[in-house]
Amino acid sequence: MFDEGIIFASDSRTNAGMDNVLKFCKMTVFERHGDRVIVLLSSGNLAGTQAVISVLRQHCADGDAVTNVMGARTMFDVVRLVADAMRDIEKRDAGYLAKQDVRFNASFIVGGQIDGEPMRLFRIYAETNFIEAGVETAFFQTGETKYGKPILDRVFTHDTLLADAAKCVLVSFDSTMRSNLSVGMPIDLLCYEKDSLAVTLRRQFDVGDPYFTALSQEWGEGTRQVFRHLPELRW
Amino acid sequence: MFDEGIIFASDSRTNAGMDNVLKFCKMTVFERHGDRVIVLLSSGNLAGTQAVISVLRQHCADGDAVTNVMGARTMFDVVRLVADAMRDIEKRDAGYLAKQDVRFNASFIVGGQIDGEPMRLFRIYAETNFIEAGVETAFFQTGETKYGKPILDRVFTHDTLLADAAKCVLVSFDSTMRSNLSVGMPIDLLCYEKDSLAVTLRRQFDVGDPYFTALSQEWGEGTRQVFRHLPELRW
Repeated sequence: MFDEGIIFASDSRTNAGMDNVLKFCKMTVFERHGDRVIVLLSSGNLAGTQAVISVLRQHCADGDAVTNVMGARTMFDVVRLVADAMRDIEKRDAGYLAKQDVRFNASFIVGGQIDGEPMRLFRIYAETNFIEAGVETAFFQTGETKYGKPILDRVFTHDTLLADAAKCVLVSFDSTMRSNLSVGMPIDLLCYEKDSLAVTLRRQFDVGDPYFTALSQEWGEGTRQVFRHLPELRW
Repeated sequence: MFDEGIIFASDSRTNAGMDNVLKFCKMTVFERHGDRVIVLLSSGNLAGTQAVISVLRQHCADGDAVTNVMGARTMFDVVRLVADAMRDIEKRDAGYLAKQDVRFNASFIVGGQIDGEPMRLFRIYAETNFIEAGVETAFFQTGETKYGKPILDRVFTHDTLLADAAKCVLVSFDSTMRSNLSVGMPIDLLCYEKDSLAVTLRRQFDVGDPYFTALSQEWGEGTRQVFRHLPELRW
């Protein structure tokens, strides 16, 4: 989350072992032009995260005033509804899964803006408690976070331009995908511009995407150049 | 491991919880000029790794022909001796520790050169089995590996110059230390030059080291420059 807006990004790989790898979009958007943009990014057990999203969508379709994220007054209330849906699913499934040694786990990053509020960004843990990004928090991650974190730590500050932040997020995903097989294309990228209350910039990058490929190559060459010009070590 | 030699590096932080953080060198060198250089890097439970090193050192002092790494004919034999020492310690301690819910774990990276052999590099798992680096293996890591891996994946090839590789390893540690509190200064760095059969280049970098500080700053600035010049994303 930056002064200019929020960048959301997710990969699409899910796996139940090395020989059972599938693609699913992990980004979900609830939007009403001029009123709200709510973006969810999910990680963890796919059956769990999909069920949570389906519950949230059904509540929207039912138009229930109390449980409907499209009717929530604040982002805080939205995140509580997501946590409630997680608890509902867990109540139904966790005991049954535990008998088969499968752990119910699902976590979410939820962010966006509702008319009348500033942009807000939250991270919901698998335990359904959650934290909100403050002035000092440039970003949240969930899932396979470690490989891609150093570049974000190095580059992101609150006033990073959205255009630069978007490139940095893509490089972070590229690095993670090179180092770890559990993260894979396509990458979904959404750039929310502050106070727009609409999704205007969204793209998916699949294998062989010319921009993504160029970005990866130029980043690799650029960093090798930087190494060559770093001061020589005297032993 | 590169055409020109091998770079070894280790941090010095060990912890038994956030409120019990200590410094210990995790790099051990066995050297006889003109005959052999053997470097061990350790990770895992410090009591375990220290005990393994002490056993190896005692065998050297005893001059026992069978168990002495200074008398081993090949690096393969050296690594077997390290694995044997790990098994000895585990036999003595693991059962006792398990009763107190502490897991015995220790792993090592072992590399170097013995006169008559090429350079060789191994990684011993906590289970005491081990693998050797081949032509396609540029590096091994052990411990908190993920944060620092992408930059190594991006930069290292067999013909990377030792001078550049050393800088890259330091940047990798710097990135890890910025993103994770379980890794900390000082950093021990050793550059073994092929066929030298001697340790000629070794340095420790502690907090505030002028070279390390400059390297970190110039890397940060350099990468931000690279971002600024990456192609703009068209949505």
